[in-house]
Amino acid sequence: MLKTKKSERIAAVTKILVDNPNVLFNLDYFSEKFNAAKSTLSEDILTIKETFERFGLGEITTIPGAGGGIKYKPKWGNEPTKDFLIDICSKLKDPKRIIPGGFIYMTDIILSPALVSRIGEIFADRFSHKNPDYIVTVETKGITLAIMTARAMNIPLVIIRRNVKVTEGPSVSINYLSGSSQRIQTMSLPRRAIKEDTKILFIDDFMKAGGTAKGMIDLMSEFNAEVVGIGVMVATRDPVNKLVDDFFSLLTLNSVDTQTGKIDIIPNVNF
Amino acid sequence: MLKTKKSERIAAVTKILVDNPNVLFNLDYFSEKFNAAKSTLSEDILTIKETFERFGLGEITTIPGAGGGIKYKPKWGNEPTKDFLIDICSKLKDPKRIIPGGFIYMTDIILSPALVSRIGEIFADRFSHKNPDYIVTVETKGITLAIMTARAMNIPLVIIRRNVKVTEGPSVSINYLSGSSQRIQTMSLPRRAIKEDTKILFIDDFMKAGGTAKGMIDLMSEFNAEVVGIGVMVATRDPVNKLVDDFFSLLTLNSVDTQTGKIDIIPNVNF
Repeated sequence: MLKTKKSERIAAVTKILVDNPNVLFNLDYFSEKFNAAKSTLSEDILTIKETFERFGLGEITTIPGAGGGIKYKPKWGNEPTKDFLIDICSKLKDPKRIIPGGFIYMTDIILSPALVSRIGEIFADRFSHKNPDYIVTVETKGITLAIMTARAMNIPLVIIRRNVKVTEGPSVSINYLSGSSQRIQTMSLPRRAIKEDTKILFIDDFMKAGGTAKGMIDLMSEFNAEVVGIGVMVATRDPVNKLVDDFFSLLTLNSVDTQTGKIDIIPNVNF
Repeated sequence: MLKTKKSERIAAVTKILVDNPNVLFNLDYFSEKFNAAKSTLSEDILTIKETFERFGLGEITTIPGAGGGIKYKPKWGNEPTKDFLIDICSKLKDPKRIIPGGFIYMTDIILSPALVSRIGEIFADRFSHKNPDYIVTVETKGITLAIMTARAMNIPLVIIRRNVKVTEGPSVSINYLSGSSQRIQTMSLPRRAIKEDTKILFIDDFMKAGGTAKGMIDLMSEFNAEVVGIGVMVATRDPVNKLVDDFFSLLTLNSVDTQTGKIDIIPNVNF
Protein backbone atom coordinates (compact mmCIF):
# COMPACT_ATOMS: atom_id res chain seq x y z
CA MET A 1 0.00 0.00 0.00
CA LEU A 2 1.12 3.50 -0.82
CA LYS A 3 2.14 5.90 1.92
CA THR A 4 -0.52 8.37 3.01
CA LYS A 5 -0.14 12.13 3.36
CA LYS A 6 -0.82 13.87 6.67
CA SER A 7 -3.95 15.58 5.35
CA GLU A 8 -5.29 12.25 4.07
CA ARG A 9 -4.65 10.46 7.37
CA ILE A 10 -6.32 13.30 9.24
CA ALA A 11 -9.44 13.12 7.04
CA ALA A 12 -9.68 9.34 7.45
CA VAL A 13 -8.92 9.18 11.20
CA THR A 14 -11.35 12.04 11.92
CA LYS A 15 -14.09 10.26 9.93
CA ILE A 16 -13.60 6.98 11.82
CA LEU A 17 -13.45 8.61 15.26
CA VAL A 18 -16.50 10.85 14.72
CA ASP A 19 -18.52 7.96 13.27
CA ASN A 20 -17.91 5.94 16.44
CA PRO A 21 -18.39 8.11 19.53
CA ASN A 22 -16.80 6.71 22.68
CA VAL A 23 -15.29 3.72 20.84
CA LEU A 24 -11.67 3.16 21.84
CA PHE A 25 -9.34 2.70 18.85
CA ASN A 26 -5.89 1.26 19.24
CA LEU A 27 -3.08 3.22 17.62
CA ASP A 28 -1.96 -0.01 15.89
CA TYR A 29 -5.31 -0.14 14.11
CA PHE A 30 -4.73 3.23 12.43
CA SER A 31 -1.04 2.52 11.94
CA GLU A 32 -1.77 -0.62 9.89
CA LYS A 33 -4.74 0.83 8.05
CA PHE A 34 -2.86 3.89 6.86
CA ASN A 35 0.65 2.44 6.60
CA ALA A 36 2.24 5.01 8.89
CA ALA A 37 4.41 4.89 12.00
CA LYS A 38 2.69 5.14 15.36
CA SER A 39 4.69 8.26 16.19
CA THR A 40 3.38 9.89 12.99
CA LEU A 41 -0.18 8.97 13.89
CA SER A 42 0.26 10.35 17.39
CA GLU A 43 1.12 13.69 15.85
CA ASP A 44 -1.90 13.49 13.52
CA ILE A 45 -4.16 12.77 16.47
CA LEU A 46 -2.72 15.71 18.38
CA THR A 47 -3.63 17.95 15.44
CA ILE A 48 -7.19 16.60 15.44
CA LYS A 49 -7.44 17.02 19.22
CA GLU A 50 -6.23 20.63 19.15
CA THR A 51 -8.45 21.53 16.20
CA PHE A 52 -11.52 20.06 17.93
CA GLU A 53 -10.72 22.05 21.07
CA ARG A 54 -10.14 25.27 19.17
CA PHE A 55 -13.44 25.09 17.27
CA GLY A 56 -15.57 23.43 19.99
CA LEU A 57 -16.05 20.26 17.96
CA GLY A 58 -15.71 17.71 20.77
CA GLU A 59 -13.06 15.97 22.82
CA ILE A 60 -10.36 13.56 21.69
CA THR A 61 -9.08 11.49 24.63
CA THR A 62 -5.87 9.48 24.58
CA ILE A 63 -5.68 6.63 27.07
CA PRO A 64 -2.08 5.50 27.54
CA GLY A 65 -0.81 1.97 28.14
CA ALA A 66 -1.36 -1.50 26.70
CA GLY A 67 -5.18 -1.44 26.77
CA GLY A 68 -5.22 2.19 25.77
CA GLY A 69 -6.08 4.06 22.62
CA ILE A 70 -7.91 7.09 21.28
CA LYS A 71 -11.55 7.99 21.40
CA TYR A 72 -13.86 10.80 20.41
CA LYS A 73 -16.39 12.16 22.87
CA PRO A 74 -19.12 14.52 21.66
CA LYS A 75 -19.04 17.78 23.64
CA TRP A 76 -20.79 21.04 22.80
CA GLY A 77 -19.88 23.45 25.57
CA ASN A 78 -22.24 25.52 27.73
CA GLU A 79 -22.95 28.47 25.47
CA PRO A 80 -23.73 26.53 22.26
CA THR A 81 -25.89 24.15 24.33
CA LYS A 82 -27.83 27.03 25.87
CA ASP A 83 -28.37 28.58 22.42
CA PHE A 84 -29.55 25.23 21.08
CA LEU A 85 -32.07 24.83 23.94
CA ILE A 86 -33.34 28.39 23.56
CA ASP A 87 -33.94 27.59 19.90
CA ILE A 88 -35.97 24.48 20.79
CA CYS A 89 -37.98 26.52 23.32
CA SER A 90 -38.86 29.07 20.68
CA LYS A 91 -40.07 26.27 18.38
CA LEU A 92 -42.18 24.84 21.23
CA LYS A 93 -43.75 28.21 22.08
CA ASP A 94 -45.84 28.24 18.89
CA PRO A 95 -49.51 28.47 20.05
CA LYS A 96 -50.51 26.08 17.23
CA ARG A 97 -48.86 23.36 19.33
CA ILE A 98 -51.53 23.57 22.03
CA ILE A 99 -53.74 20.48 22.03
CA PRO A 100 -57.08 20.37 23.86
CA GLY A 101 -56.35 19.32 27.43
CA GLY A 102 -53.40 21.68 27.80
CA PHE A 103 -50.84 19.39 26.18
CA ILE A 104 -48.31 20.62 23.65
CA TYR A 105 -47.36 18.82 20.46
CA MET A 106 -43.64 17.95 20.61
CA THR A 107 -43.58 14.88 18.40
CA ASP A 108 -41.89 16.62 15.46
CA ILE A 109 -38.97 17.62 17.72
CA ILE A 110 -38.28 14.11 18.97
CA LEU A 111 -38.58 12.77 15.42
CA SER A 112 -36.11 15.21 13.89
CA PRO A 113 -32.82 13.28 13.57
CA ALA A 114 -30.63 16.41 13.76
CA LEU A 115 -32.29 17.58 16.99
CA VAL A 116 -32.38 14.19 18.72
CA SER A 117 -28.73 13.40 17.87
CA ARG A 118 -27.70 16.64 19.49
CA ILE A 119 -29.93 16.09 22.54
CA GLY A 120 -28.50 12.58 22.88
CA GLU A 121 -25.01 14.07 22.91
CA ILE A 122 -25.99 16.59 25.58
CA PHE A 123 -27.38 13.82 27.81
CA ALA A 124 -24.28 11.69 27.17
CA ASP A 125 -21.97 14.52 28.17
CA ARG A 126 -24.02 15.32 31.26
CA PHE A 127 -24.09 11.72 32.54
CA SER A 128 -20.80 10.27 31.28
CA HIS A 129 -19.15 10.48 34.73
CA LYS A 130 -21.83 8.07 36.05
CA ASN A 131 -20.52 5.32 33.72
CA PRO A 132 -23.85 3.60 33.04
CA ASP A 133 -23.90 0.13 31.44
CA TYR A 134 -27.25 0.65 29.72
CA ILE A 135 -29.60 3.39 28.59
CA VAL A 136 -33.18 2.50 29.55
CA THR A 137 -36.40 4.05 28.26
CA VAL A 138 -40.11 3.19 28.30
CA GLU A 139 -41.84 2.89 24.93
CA THR A 140 -42.62 4.87 22.75
CA LYS A 141 -41.69 8.51 22.61
CA GLY A 142 -38.41 8.39 24.50
CA ILE A 143 -36.89 5.84 22.12
CA THR A 144 -35.32 8.22 19.61
CA LEU A 145 -33.68 10.31 22.36
CA ALA A 146 -32.56 7.16 24.15
CA ILE A 147 -30.93 5.48 21.13
CA MET A 148 -29.07 8.70 20.30
CA THR A 149 -27.82 8.94 23.90
CA ALA A 150 -26.81 5.28 23.66
CA ARG A 151 -24.95 6.00 20.43
CA ALA A 152 -23.08 8.96 21.95
CA MET A 153 -22.08 6.85 24.98
CA ASN A 154 -21.48 3.62 23.04
CA ILE A 155 -23.62 1.48 25.33
CA PRO A 156 -26.71 -0.62 24.55
CA LEU A 157 -30.29 0.57 24.84
CA VAL A 158 -33.05 -1.29 26.69
CA ILE A 159 -36.73 -0.59 25.99
CA ILE A 160 -39.30 -1.31 28.70
CA ARG A 161 -42.56 -2.41 27.12
CA ARG A 162 -46.09 -1.55 28.20
CA ASN A 163 -47.14 -5.17 27.86
CA VAL A 164 -45.49 -8.58 27.60
CA LYS A 165 -44.41 -9.69 24.13
CA VAL A 166 -44.22 -13.40 23.40
CA THR A 167 -41.30 -12.89 21.03
CA GLU A 168 -38.92 -11.84 23.77
CA GLY A 169 -38.98 -14.81 26.18
CA PRO A 170 -39.50 -14.85 29.97
CA SER A 171 -40.20 -11.38 31.33
CA VAL A 172 -40.52 -9.52 34.61
CA SER A 173 -43.62 -7.33 34.93
CA ILE A 174 -44.67 -4.79 37.52
CA ASN A 175 -47.75 -2.68 38.08
CA TYR A 176 -47.35 0.97 38.97
CA LEU A 177 -49.51 4.00 39.52
CA SER A 178 -49.14 6.65 36.83
CA GLY A 179 -48.44 9.89 38.66
CA SER A 180 -50.82 12.17 36.81
CA SER A 181 -53.77 9.98 35.81
CA GLN A 182 -53.57 7.76 38.92
CA ARG A 183 -54.27 4.75 36.75
CA ILE A 184 -52.66 1.36 37.30
CA GLN A 185 -50.28 0.60 34.45
CA THR A 186 -47.95 -2.25 33.56
CA MET A 187 -44.28 -2.30 32.58
CA SER A 188 -42.36 -5.35 31.52
CA LEU A 189 -38.87 -6.33 30.48
CA PRO A 190 -37.46 -9.65 29.24
CA ARG A 191 -35.18 -11.39 31.75
CA ARG A 192 -32.31 -11.44 29.28
CA ALA A 193 -32.47 -7.73 28.47
CA ILE A 194 -30.25 -6.60 31.38
CA LYS A 195 -27.39 -8.32 33.16
CA GLU A 196 -27.58 -8.35 36.98
CA ASP A 197 -25.75 -5.75 39.10
CA THR A 198 -25.43 -3.11 36.42
CA LYS A 199 -25.86 0.64 36.31
CA ILE A 200 -28.53 2.24 34.19
CA LEU A 201 -29.32 5.72 32.88
CA PHE A 202 -33.02 6.41 32.25
CA ILE A 203 -33.89 8.72 29.33
CA ASP A 204 -37.40 9.89 28.44
CA ASP A 205 -39.09 12.70 26.54
CA PHE A 206 -41.42 14.03 29.21
CA MET A 207 -41.98 14.01 32.96
CA LYS A 208 -45.02 15.32 34.80
CA ALA A 209 -45.48 13.68 38.20
CA GLY A 210 -42.69 11.14 37.70
CA GLY A 211 -44.85 8.00 37.91
CA THR A 212 -43.17 6.34 34.95
CA ALA A 213 -39.69 7.05 36.34
CA LYS A 214 -40.74 5.70 39.74
CA GLY A 215 -42.15 2.53 38.14
CA MET A 216 -38.94 2.11 36.15
CA ILE A 217 -36.84 2.32 39.35
CA ASP A 218 -39.01 -0.42 40.90
CA LEU A 219 -38.66 -2.61 37.80
CA MET A 220 -34.89 -2.09 37.72
CA SER A 221 -34.59 -3.24 41.35
CA GLU A 222 -35.98 -6.62 40.18
CA PHE A 223 -32.83 -6.87 38.04
CA ASN A 224 -30.58 -5.62 40.86
CA ALA A 225 -29.79 -2.72 38.54
CA GLU A 226 -28.94 0.67 39.99
CA VAL A 227 -30.45 3.79 38.40
CA VAL A 228 -27.51 6.24 38.30
CA GLY A 229 -29.31 9.01 36.43
CA ILE A 230 -32.62 10.22 34.99
CA GLY A 231 -32.65 12.59 32.03
CA VAL A 232 -35.78 13.97 30.36
CA MET A 233 -36.21 16.46 27.54
CA VAL A 234 -39.13 18.33 29.13
CA ALA A 235 -40.36 18.30 32.74
CA THR A 236 -43.42 20.24 33.85
CA ARG A 237 -42.89 22.64 36.74
CA ASP A 238 -46.04 21.31 38.44
CA PRO A 239 -46.40 19.22 40.49
CA VAL A 240 -43.27 20.60 42.17
CA ASN A 241 -42.94 17.49 44.30
CA LYS A 242 -42.36 14.68 41.86
CA LEU A 243 -42.29 10.98 42.67
CA VAL A 244 -38.52 10.90 42.00
CA ASP A 245 -36.12 13.34 43.66
CA ASP A 246 -33.19 13.39 41.41
CA PHE A 247 -33.65 14.05 37.72
CA PHE A 248 -32.21 16.33 35.06
CA SER A 249 -34.47 18.03 32.51
CA LEU A 250 -33.26 20.02 29.53
CA LEU A 251 -36.39 22.18 29.49
CA THR A 252 -38.99 23.14 32.11
CA LEU A 253 -42.58 23.66 31.02
CA ASN A 254 -43.92 26.25 33.46
CA SER A 255 -47.41 26.67 32.06
CA VAL A 256 -49.67 26.38 29.04
CA ASP A 257 -52.44 28.98 28.82
CA THR A 258 -55.07 27.55 26.49
CA GLN A 259 -56.97 30.89 26.55
CA THR A 260 -54.20 33.23 25.38
CA GLY A 261 -52.07 30.60 23.60
CA LYS A 262 -49.07 31.45 25.77
CA ILE A 263 -46.64 28.58 26.38
CA ASP A 264 -44.07 29.30 29.07
CA ILE A 265 -41.11 26.95 28.59
CA ILE A 266 -37.50 27.66 29.59
CA PRO A 267 -34.13 25.97 29.17
CA ASN A 268 -32.27 24.51 32.11
CA VAL A 269 -29.05 26.44 32.60
CA ASN A 270 -27.31 24.11 35.04
CA PHE A 271 -24.80 22.11 33.04
CA MET B 1 -9.06 35.07 13.91
CA LEU B 2 -5.79 33.33 13.10
CA LYS B 3 -5.28 31.55 9.82
CA THR B 4 -5.80 27.80 9.87
CA LYS B 5 -3.46 25.13 8.52
CA LYS B 6 -4.61 22.67 5.88
CA SER B 7 -4.55 19.74 8.31
CA GLU B 8 -6.63 21.71 10.83
CA ARG B 9 -9.22 22.69 8.26
CA ILE B 10 -9.44 19.11 7.07
CA ALA B 11 -10.01 17.81 10.62
CA ALA B 12 -12.73 20.41 11.27
CA VAL B 13 -14.51 20.16 7.91
CA THR B 14 -14.48 16.34 8.05
CA LYS B 15 -15.97 16.44 11.58
CA ILE B 16 -18.79 18.77 10.54
CA LEU B 17 -19.64 16.87 7.35
CA VAL B 18 -19.62 13.41 9.00
CA ASP B 19 -21.70 14.67 11.94
CA ASN B 20 -24.40 15.85 9.53
CA PRO B 21 -25.05 13.22 6.86
CA ASN B 22 -26.82 14.56 3.78
CA VAL B 23 -26.82 18.14 5.07
CA LEU B 24 -25.74 20.59 2.37
CA PHE B 25 -23.06 23.05 3.51
CA ASN B 26 -22.30 26.19 1.61
CA LEU B 27 -18.62 26.82 0.85
CA ASP B 28 -19.03 30.32 2.34
CA TYR B 29 -19.93 28.75 5.67
CA PHE B 30 -16.59 26.96 5.91
CA SER B 31 -14.74 29.89 4.38
CA GLU B 32 -15.92 32.26 7.13
CA LYS B 33 -15.64 29.74 9.94
CA PHE B 34 -12.04 28.87 9.13
CA ASN B 35 -10.87 32.18 7.70
CA ALA B 36 -9.70 30.70 4.41
CA ALA B 37 -10.31 31.46 0.74
CA LYS B 38 -12.99 29.46 -1.03
CA SER B 39 -10.43 28.15 -3.51
CA THR B 40 -8.34 26.84 -0.61
CA LEU B 41 -11.37 25.13 0.89
CA SER B 42 -12.25 23.57 -2.46
CA GLU B 43 -8.84 21.94 -2.46
CA ASP B 44 -9.31 20.73 1.13
CA ILE B 45 -12.65 19.21 0.22
CA LEU B 46 -11.12 17.48 -2.77
CA THR B 47 -8.56 15.88 -0.42
CA ILE B 48 -11.36 14.69 1.89
CA LYS B 49 -13.35 13.38 -1.07
CA GLU B 50 -10.42 11.43 -2.51
CA THR B 51 -9.42 10.03 0.88
CA PHE B 52 -12.98 8.85 1.57
CA GLU B 53 -13.08 7.15 -1.83
CA ARG B 54 -9.71 5.49 -1.38
CA PHE B 55 -10.56 4.02 2.03
CA GLY B 56 -14.28 3.35 1.44
CA LEU B 57 -15.37 5.88 4.04
CA GLY B 58 -18.33 7.39 2.19
CA GLU B 59 -19.12 9.87 -0.54
CA ILE B 60 -18.50 13.61 -0.62
CA THR B 61 -20.71 15.30 -3.21
CA THR B 62 -20.19 18.81 -4.53
CA ILE B 63 -23.25 20.52 -5.96
CA PRO B 64 -22.25 23.50 -8.12
CA GLY B 65 -24.09 26.80 -8.50
CA ALA B 66 -25.73 29.37 -6.27
CA GLY B 67 -27.83 26.96 -4.20
CA GLY B 68 -25.03 24.42 -4.17
CA GLY B 69 -22.55 23.21 -1.62
CA ILE B 70 -20.93 20.10 -0.20
CA LYS B 71 -22.43 17.14 1.55
CA TYR B 72 -21.41 13.80 3.01
CA LYS B 73 -23.32 10.66 2.14
CA PRO B 74 -22.68 7.46 4.13
CA LYS B 75 -21.72 4.62 1.76
CA TRP B 76 -20.16 1.29 2.69
CA GLY B 77 -19.76 -0.57 -0.60
CA ASN B 78 -20.96 -4.08 -1.44
CA GLU B 79 -18.24 -6.23 0.10
CA PRO B 80 -18.07 -4.53 3.52
CA THR B 81 -21.89 -4.55 3.64
CA LYS B 82 -22.00 -8.26 2.85
CA ASP B 83 -19.39 -8.98 5.55
CA PHE B 84 -21.37 -6.90 8.03
CA LEU B 85 -24.60 -8.79 7.26
CA ILE B 86 -22.86 -12.17 7.47
CA ASP B 87 -21.63 -11.12 10.90
CA ILE B 88 -25.17 -10.24 12.04
CA CYS B 89 -26.41 -13.59 10.69
CA SER B 90 -23.81 -15.46 12.72
CA LYS B 91 -24.93 -13.59 15.85
CA LEU B 92 -28.56 -14.48 15.10
CA LYS B 93 -27.79 -18.17 14.54
CA ASP B 94 -27.11 -18.77 18.25
CA PRO B 95 -29.62 -21.50 19.34
CA LYS B 96 -30.07 -19.67 22.68
CA ARG B 97 -32.04 -17.09 20.72
CA ILE B 98 -34.89 -19.51 20.02
CA ILE B 99 -38.01 -18.58 21.95
CA PRO B 100 -40.93 -21.01 22.41
CA GLY B 101 -43.18 -20.54 19.39
CA GLY B 102 -40.31 -20.59 16.92
CA PHE B 103 -39.44 -16.91 17.28
CA ILE B 104 -35.88 -15.69 17.58
CA TYR B 105 -34.68 -13.02 19.99
CA MET B 106 -33.29 -10.11 17.98
CA THR B 107 -33.93 -7.25 20.39
CA ASP B 108 -30.27 -6.84 21.38
CA ILE B 109 -29.33 -6.30 17.71
CA ILE B 110 -31.86 -3.52 17.13
CA LEU B 111 -30.85 -1.88 20.44
CA SER B 112 -27.13 -1.83 19.70
CA PRO B 113 -26.36 1.73 18.54
CA ALA B 114 -23.34 0.70 16.46
CA LEU B 115 -25.31 -1.94 14.55
CA VAL B 116 -28.44 0.16 13.99
CA SER B 117 -26.48 3.22 12.80
CA ARG B 118 -24.80 1.05 10.21
CA ILE B 119 -28.08 -0.62 9.15
CA GLY B 120 -29.68 2.83 8.87
CA GLU B 121 -26.86 3.89 6.54
CA ILE B 122 -27.34 0.78 4.41
CA PHE B 123 -31.07 1.48 4.05
CA ALA B 124 -30.35 5.16 3.29
CA ASP B 125 -27.90 4.23 0.55
CA ARG B 126 -30.27 1.66 -0.93
CA PHE B 127 -33.25 4.03 -1.10
CA SER B 128 -31.65 7.45 -1.62
CA HIS B 129 -32.56 7.53 -5.34
CA LYS B 130 -36.25 7.38 -4.33
CA ASN B 131 -35.94 10.78 -2.59
CA PRO B 132 -38.46 10.16 0.21
CA ASP B 133 -39.74 13.09 2.30
CA TYR B 134 -40.27 10.99 5.44
CA ILE B 135 -39.20 7.74 7.04
CA VAL B 136 -42.23 5.96 8.49
CA THR B 137 -42.31 3.08 10.96
CA VAL B 138 -44.89 1.40 13.21
CA GLU B 139 -44.12 1.34 16.93
CA THR B 140 -42.09 -0.16 18.64
CA LYS B 141 -39.24 -2.28 17.41
CA GLY B 142 -38.58 -0.57 14.10
CA ILE B 143 -38.01 2.84 15.70
CA THR B 144 -34.25 2.59 16.28
CA LEU B 145 -33.61 1.41 12.71
CA ALA B 146 -35.97 4.07 11.37
CA ILE B 147 -34.43 7.03 13.23
CA MET B 148 -30.95 5.97 12.11
CA THR B 149 -32.15 5.76 8.50
CA ALA B 150 -33.74 9.19 8.95
CA ARG B 151 -30.45 10.52 10.31
CA ALA B 152 -28.46 9.12 7.39
CA MET B 153 -30.93 10.64 4.88
CA ASN B 154 -31.51 13.88 6.81
CA ILE B 155 -35.30 13.63 6.69
CA PRO B 156 -37.84 13.45 9.54
CA LEU B 157 -39.23 10.28 11.06
CA VAL B 158 -42.92 9.52 11.55
CA ILE B 159 -44.09 6.87 14.00
CA ILE B 160 -47.46 5.20 13.46
CA ARG B 161 -49.04 4.34 16.81
CA ARG B 162 -51.05 1.26 17.72
CA ASN B 163 -53.68 3.42 19.39
CA VAL B 164 -54.76 7.03 19.46
CA LYS B 165 -52.90 9.34 21.88
CA VAL B 166 -54.71 12.40 23.18
CA THR B 167 -51.48 14.39 23.31
CA GLU B 168 -51.08 14.44 19.54
CA GLY B 169 -54.30 16.08 18.35
CA PRO B 170 -56.75 14.94 15.63
CA SER B 171 -55.72 11.58 14.15
CA VAL B 172 -56.56 9.25 11.30
CA SER B 173 -57.07 5.62 12.31
CA ILE B 174 -57.52 2.48 10.25
CA ASN B 175 -58.20 -1.15 11.05
CA TYR B 176 -56.20 -3.83 9.30
CA LEU B 177 -55.81 -7.58 9.38
CA SER B 178 -52.46 -8.71 10.73
CA GLY B 179 -51.07 -11.11 8.13
CA SER B 180 -49.92 -13.89 10.44
CA SER B 181 -52.32 -13.84 13.39
CA GLN B 182 -55.34 -12.79 11.31
CA ARG B 183 -56.40 -10.47 14.10
CA ILE B 184 -57.91 -7.07 13.53
CA GLN B 185 -55.50 -4.37 14.62
CA THR B 186 -55.51 -0.58 14.67
CA MET B 187 -52.98 1.97 13.40
CA SER B 188 -53.24 5.69 13.85
CA LEU B 189 -51.37 8.82 12.94
CA PRO B 190 -51.96 12.48 13.87
CA ARG B 191 -53.22 14.62 10.98
CA ARG B 192 -50.32 17.02 11.36
CA ALA B 193 -47.63 14.30 11.25
CA ILE B 194 -47.35 14.18 7.44
CA LYS B 195 -47.87 16.86 4.79
CA GLU B 196 -50.13 15.90 1.89
CA ASP B 197 -48.70 14.61 -1.41
CA THR B 198 -45.38 13.44 -0.07
CA LYS B 199 -43.21 10.37 -0.59
CA ILE B 200 -42.49 8.01 2.25
CA LEU B 201 -40.01 5.20 2.94
CA PHE B 202 -41.25 2.52 5.36
CA ILE B 203 -38.63 0.92 7.65
CA ASP B 204 -39.32 -1.95 10.06
CA ASP B 205 -37.43 -4.67 11.89
CA PHE B 206 -39.36 -7.74 10.78
CA MET B 207 -41.79 -8.92 8.12
CA LYS B 208 -43.66 -12.20 8.05
CA ALA B 209 -46.85 -12.03 5.98
CA GLY B 210 -46.63 -8.28 5.40
CA GLY B 211 -49.89 -7.32 7.15
CA THR B 212 -48.34 -4.36 8.93
CA ALA B 213 -46.78 -3.04 5.71
CA LYS B 214 -50.10 -3.46 3.90
CA GLY B 215 -51.94 -1.59 6.69
CA MET B 216 -49.34 1.17 6.56
CA ILE B 217 -49.86 1.60 2.78
CA ASP B 218 -53.62 1.95 3.39
CA LEU B 219 -53.05 4.51 6.14
CA MET B 220 -50.64 6.48 3.96
CA SER B 221 -53.22 6.71 1.19
CA GLU B 222 -55.42 8.62 3.66
CA PHE B 223 -52.67 11.27 3.66
CA ASN B 224 -52.25 11.10 -0.15
CA ALA B 225 -48.71 9.95 0.60
CA GLU B 226 -46.94 7.61 -1.78
CA VAL B 227 -44.94 4.69 -0.38
CA VAL B 228 -41.76 4.70 -2.50
CA GLY B 229 -39.95 1.93 -0.63
CA ILE B 230 -40.20 -0.71 2.10
CA GLY B 231 -37.07 -1.84 3.93
CA VAL B 232 -36.99 -4.45 6.70
CA MET B 233 -34.09 -5.94 8.62
CA VAL B 234 -35.40 -9.52 8.58
CA ALA B 235 -38.10 -11.07 6.40
CA THR B 236 -39.20 -14.68 6.80
CA ARG B 237 -39.04 -16.82 3.66
CA ASP B 238 -42.54 -18.14 4.39
CA PRO B 239 -45.18 -17.27 3.43
CA VAL B 240 -43.58 -16.74 0.02
CA ASN B 241 -46.54 -14.69 -1.16
CA LYS B 242 -46.59 -11.66 1.10
CA LEU B 243 -49.31 -9.04 1.25
CA VAL B 244 -46.94 -6.48 -0.33
CA ASP B 245 -45.04 -7.18 -3.55
CA ASP B 246 -42.13 -4.89 -3.42
CA PHE B 247 -39.90 -4.83 -0.35
CA PHE B 248 -36.21 -5.05 0.41
CA SER B 249 -34.95 -7.15 3.33
CA LEU B 250 -31.38 -7.20 4.57
CA LEU B 251 -31.72 -10.77 5.87
CA THR B 252 -34.00 -13.69 5.04
CA LEU B 253 -35.02 -16.08 7.80
CA ASN B 254 -35.49 -19.40 6.02
CA SER B 255 -36.35 -21.56 9.02
CA VAL B 256 -36.07 -22.05 12.76
CA ASP B 257 -35.81 -25.67 13.90
CA THR B 258 -36.83 -25.71 17.57
CA GLN B 259 -35.80 -29.40 17.84
CA THR B 260 -32.20 -29.16 16.66
CA GLY B 261 -31.68 -25.47 17.46
CA LYS B 262 -30.74 -24.73 13.87
CA ILE B 263 -31.55 -21.22 12.66
CA ASP B 264 -31.22 -20.77 8.91
CA ILE B 265 -30.80 -17.08 8.15
CA ILE B 266 -28.96 -15.58 5.17
CA PRO B 267 -27.96 -12.10 4.00
CA ASN B 268 -29.49 -10.53 0.94
CA VAL B 269 -26.81 -10.07 -1.70
CA ASN B 270 -28.70 -7.79 -4.07
CA PHE B 271 -27.50 -4.29 -3.45
